Amino acid sequence: MTTDENLAAVVSTTQGDYRVVVGRGVIDDIGPEMKSAGLSGRAFLVADVSMFPTAVHRTHEALERAGFVTNVMTLELSERVKNMETVLDIYQWLSEHRAERIDTVVAMGGGVAGDLVGFVAATWLRGVPVVQVPTSLAAMVDASIGGKVAVNLPAGKNLVGAFHQPKLVLQDVDHLKTLPAREMAGGFAEAIKHGLILDADLLDTFEKNADEMQSLETDLAVRTIRRSVQIKAEVVSADEFERGETRILLNYGHTIGHAIEAVSGYGEYLHGEAVAVGMMAAAGIAQRLGMIDAELVDRQRAVLQRYSLPVTVKGVTAEQLIEATKTDKKNRGGNIRWVLLEGPGKSVTRRDVPEDVVREAVEAVIE
Amino acid sequence: MTTDENLAAVVSTTQGDYRVVVGRGVIDDIGPEMKSAGLSGRAFLVADVSMFPTAVHRTHEALERAGFVTNVMTLELSERVKNMETVLDIYQWLSEHRAERIDTVVAMGGGVAGDLVGFVAATWLRGVPVVQVPTSLAAMVDASIGGKVAVNLPAGKNLVGAFHQPKLVLQDVDHLKTLPAREMAGGFAEAIKHGLILDADLLDTFEKNADEMQSLETDLAVRTIRRSVQIKAEVVSADEFERGETRILLNYGHTIGHAIEAVSGYGEYLHGEAVAVGMMAAAGIAQRLGMIDAELVDRQRAVLQRYSLPVTVKGVTAEQLIEATKTDKKNRGGNIRWVLLEGPGKSVTRRDVPEDVVREAVEAVIE
Repeated sequence: MTTDENLAAVVSTTQGDYRVVVGRGVIDDIGPEMKSAGLSGRAFLVADVSMFPTAVHRTHEALERAGFVTNVMTLELSERVKNMETVLDIYQWLSEHRAERIDTVVAMGGGVAGDLVGFVAATWLRGVPVVQVPTSLAAMVDASIGGKVAVNLPAGKNLVGAFHQPKLVLQDVDHLKTLPAREMAGGFAEAIKHGLILDADLLDTFEKNADEMQSLETDLAVRTIRRSVQIKAEVVSADEFERGETRILLNYGHTIGHAIEAVSGYGEYLHGEAVAVGMMAAAGIAQRLGMIDAELVDRQRAVLQRYSLPVTVKGVTAEQLIEATKTDKKNRGGNIRWVLLEGPGKSVTRRDVPEDVVREAVEAVIE
Repeated sequence: MTTDENLAAVVSTTQGDYRVVVGRGVIDDIGPEMKSAGLSGRAFLVADVSMFPTAVHRTHEALERAGFVTNVMTLELSERVKNMETVLDIYQWLSEHRAERIDTVVAMGGGVAGDLVGFVAATWLRGVPVVQVPTSLAAMVDASIGGKVAVNLPAGKNLVGAFHQPKLVLQDVDHLKTLPAREMAGGFAEAIKHGLILDADLLDTFEKNADEMQSLETDLAVRTIRRSVQIKAEVVSADEFERGETRILLNYGHTIGHAIEAVSGYGEYLHGEAVAVGMMAAAGIAQRLGMIDAELVDRQRAVLQRYSLPVTVKGVTAEQLIEATKTDKKNRGGNIRWVLLEGPGKSVTRRDVPEDVVREAVEAVIE
């Protein structure tokens, strides 16, 4: 087991508690960490084919070294194939190896790996243990924690899924070294978001150490990522099923962000990029409602730009984006629940935002 | 809401508590029952096409009468199509109607309807409420309670599924009037099993009132079914995830029962018929181990025969059945956990049964 210096959080859920470990080289500790989480049986490691083979191999070795007999499947795990056919391929592989209830599925890759392989684990034999090994920054600070798993249908994204909490989330910061710069930036959008909505100190750290953060070379960088992860873990512990107020706050920037993704066609903007623009639109709404001043809006814009994130969007109209927010499945049957800042590190939800305010704020983020 | 005379049990689970209602004509109360379970939104009624259209129509009307805007889908829900393709068909229908998280799926039909439609509800939008309206005796006394939902893969039965507790289980005994006699008998196997393993008085009632029970005409018949349902509900409340000792007891007769189904090819014997023979094999084991006397074995045989259930099997060998018990997914990786009687209404699990004792007992139930 890793030293507790690397422990970002213990997430507390109805399906049990689990450790979220964030550090350099922690993948080598996956075996002892799994044992201390009470896992035995075999390991079924499902890895995104875009991972470096050496990284997958190192995980495999670390599992075997701790006594976990391990089978490895590498396959494409991208948004394009985040569907039921890929799920059926993995079921087939599990059935060939007669994977049992005491065995553990290990999901290694970006957000799609966590979502799709997590869904397989949620449903294979009515649910087997899953360990999340996210390898993108976005998956680390966001999707890997909280048990939300899903796949797409032709009719829409993430329509089929489950709440299936992992037994362990292991985040090796060294995996980020090979992440493309644009994906890295997308991850920072979610990481910085945690500062904006809930932790002014974290926001401050992101602002003052932008170069150091993006180089990922220092302890401060690792500690800051760990703190962002911790916020997500705290929110999930407080609101496991997204029924309360707290977990909704994580959707800051996502209302317009989702609309940008839907209108521009998925793939044009990375999720984090769309969220960055969405956060600018939300900040514009909050400013127009007198909740925050122009200084905080400028501050948010500056920090996003320092991390190479877009703060405006092109090729779409305000009309299209507003229409898209209304057909979003989260917003059906009622007024949209906006997440808005009240100050640095302070946010609330509001349903009473007039449509003309939304329109003005959205127009302001369109080039 | 129905009078509490019809209330068989309130099942207590980590996903919430729910009522199990058993009575004549209770389908007319589905609307108020759903409301009192806290359900609102629309209803998506998925019914087995083998149901009488009038029965489906009556449910539809009862839902609308209580203010639930209702969509109805009828389709084949048999073991043959208990697969992911049928699941995808229902997802498609739900997406066409934009079914949301606050809407309720109502599963109406036999065991496959509950399992498959329940799995759809468990995974649509990461889980929406489901109401179980079982219409076969087997589904009433067994599968509809406890939240176990699943579908088959080419590689095996029930390999994919979830624990998704219903918000309400509504059992209208009038639905049994049109059930084929053989299926009715199969249901009695499970109902009588509850008496054998946990309730000597219930066993006694089944023995003394066999004609009355099978006619289903009297209050005693309804009360006895309700009592059998109640036992299942109590066991589920005590051991929601099948981790303890209690829920395993419900598998009495199932080790050899599953083997009979697998070896003879699914469809040759109904599940309840195979379980009846399996209970005879298990009784033979218990007798050989000195746990029960010949009188109880004879008593069990007599009551099963009174309900037109088989007590022997043909066309299979002991060797085949024993081999099949070893490849059953529940029994992998260790000794088989047998459920055995200690007396009327008393059962335990044992792992130390010698294979030659099993062989003798199995040979004794082969014609």
